[in-house]
Amino acid sequence: MKIISDRIKLSTKGNGTLINISGHLAQRIEQSKLKTGNLTVFVVGSTAAITTFEYEPGLSKDILEFYDRLAPENRTYHHDATWGDANGFSHVRAAFTGPSLTIPFEQGQLLLGTWQQVVLAEFDNRPRERTLVVHIIGE
Amino acid sequence: MKIISDRIKLSTKGNGTLINISGHLAQRIEQSKLKTGNLTVFVVGSTAAITTFEYEPGLSKDILEFYDRLAPENRTYHHDATWGDANGFSHVRAAFTGPSLTIPFEQGQLLLGTWQQVVLAEFDNRPRERTLVVHIIGE
Amino acid sequence: MKIISDRIKLSTKGNGTLINISGHLAQRIEQSKLKTGNLTVFVVGSTAAITTFEYEPGLSKDILEFYDRLAPENRTYHHDATWGDANGFSHVRAAFTGPSLTIPFEQGQLLLGTWQQVVLAEFDNRPRERTLVVHIIGE
Repeated sequence: MKIISDRIKLSTKGNGTLINISGHLAQRIEQSKLKTGNLTVFVVGSTAAITTFEYEPGLSKDILEFYDRLAPENRTYHHDATWGDANGFSHVRAAFTGPSLTIPFEQGQLLLGTWQQVVLAEFDNRPRERTLVVHIIGE
Repeated sequence: MKIISDRIKLSTKGNGTLINISGHLAQRIEQSKLKTGNLTVFVVGSTAAITTFEYEPGLSKDILEFYDRLAPENRTYHHDATWGDANGFSHVRAAFTGPSLTIPFEQGQLLLGTWQQVVLAEFDNRPRERTLVVHIIGE
Repeated sequence: MKIISDRIKLSTKGNGTLINISGHLAQRIEQSKLKTGNLTVFVVGSTAAITTFEYEPGLSKDILEFYDRLAPENRTYHHDATWGDANGFSHVRAAFTGPSLTIPFEQGQLLLGTWQQVVLAEFDNRPRERTLVVHIIGE
């Protein structure tokens, strides 16, 4: 059993940027030479999240509309009064989606479904440089 | 430290099928002979999710009504226009619930609460054959 | 590779108690002497959850208001009819937030963002004694 530690660095355009990171993760597993285990991907920061969905333009719109209904950008948030940075909605969206995902792999392949991609969801109200920590544990 | 890889295969009746998988998971831990570690269960596919709740008929109804309010089946989804398969609501529900759960175990037992069961939630609009990957890491 | 098993015990005042557990987790990693790996924290029970957000009073209010909108306390829940314990809303909130979180660490430090704290969210309608299981896997 080994643990391999890696990073993915990504630039986003702010709220609504959805980036398919499945290819990045597959590459990290290949480089690790591990065959069976779990990959954990964790986004550092409190205004972005990791999720999985079928990465096609129609569903991406649906996902963004869903977040707009649940935690609207134009509501008043107490957090905005604290800091004056107007991204209270970003924090709420990130908190209930979650920063961490663990995915099993075997024979050096992530066991995702055909239409199941891993996605970084940026919720912050400005462009960000994001660091994703990738930990691969296995043999 | 070892990693044991296993599968659970389940048939669902489509959206609203909630299956208590706690017994399946307990059995996999017993078979693994491992005593202390983490079990990760991951559902392959983008229209189902893994969650935990008290598995009793009243709460199961509450959970389904909650999903009906948050991502209603009768809304118009862009995804449905892409594929004509009318399961946009299923994808949205699965995306924000999540496909993966990691549960600690000790003395060969999952450390769940008395009223805390692990549940496969099927959201797709048709019956599906589901594969759950179970990875047990421990000693 | 080693696995260290630990516990955090916390008292809550019932629904709306949000406890920053980042310091507890950092202490457990230090005690483990492990430098690189993953920490999994899991709350036992079906009416509490683990999440991450910027732990400041404004955002804490926003988070609570968000849960009040999504699964209001004053709705009628089928679960309450089953048991007569009036905490159906607590179960629904916990189910979609999730009991488990896995966080990477390196050089003996959790790789959280500066404003990203790990929080126990109590949703039950009465004070509870909570047990959090902490499993640290690494080297």
